[in-house]
Amino acid sequence: MKARVTVTLKNGVLDPQGKAIESALHSLGIDGVASVRQGKVFDIVLDTADKAAAEAALKQAGEKLLANTVIENYKVDLVD
Amino acid sequence: MKARVTVTLKNGVLDPQGKAIESALHSLGIDGVASVRQGKVFDIVLDTADKAAAEAALKQAGEKLLANTVIENYKVDLVD
Repeated sequence: MKARVTVTLKNGVLDPQGKAIESALHSLGIDGVASVRQGKVFDIVLDTADKAAAEAALKQAGEKLLANTVIENYKVDLVD
Repeated sequence: MKARVTVTLKNGVLDPQGKAIESALHSLGIDGVASVRQGKVFDIVLDTADKAAAEAALKQAGEKLLANTVIENYKVDLVD
């Protein structure tokens, strides 16, 4: 079973990396960009075919390793 | 208009960071993970409401800045 975990900064948390990308886009002449925020994505292949077990494992992974839940949100999507 | 650009490594490109995460998950006792590959996600707010213009700008951003198209794929999704 495949899954994607997306980790994004919580609202209100400063994102200097996103700001730098925003400036770089303006410098490159790509206009119309109001804001950029960067996050991470993890494409995970699981051995199990059991949806509930997969979701439980991914939730644990998100809480313990993939996201810093003080400043980041994470979202689990099972792909198939 | 909001959009999300997702940048992932092409198949066959080694991902040591993903491998490290995989090992860390095993060390934490989270079993059933066969592989992990890490990518990046950019949440972008655009000034324009014109879908075609937004897509063109984001394609340019992907090609020129957000992805290294030698080793990475990128995908543009308009959110609203």
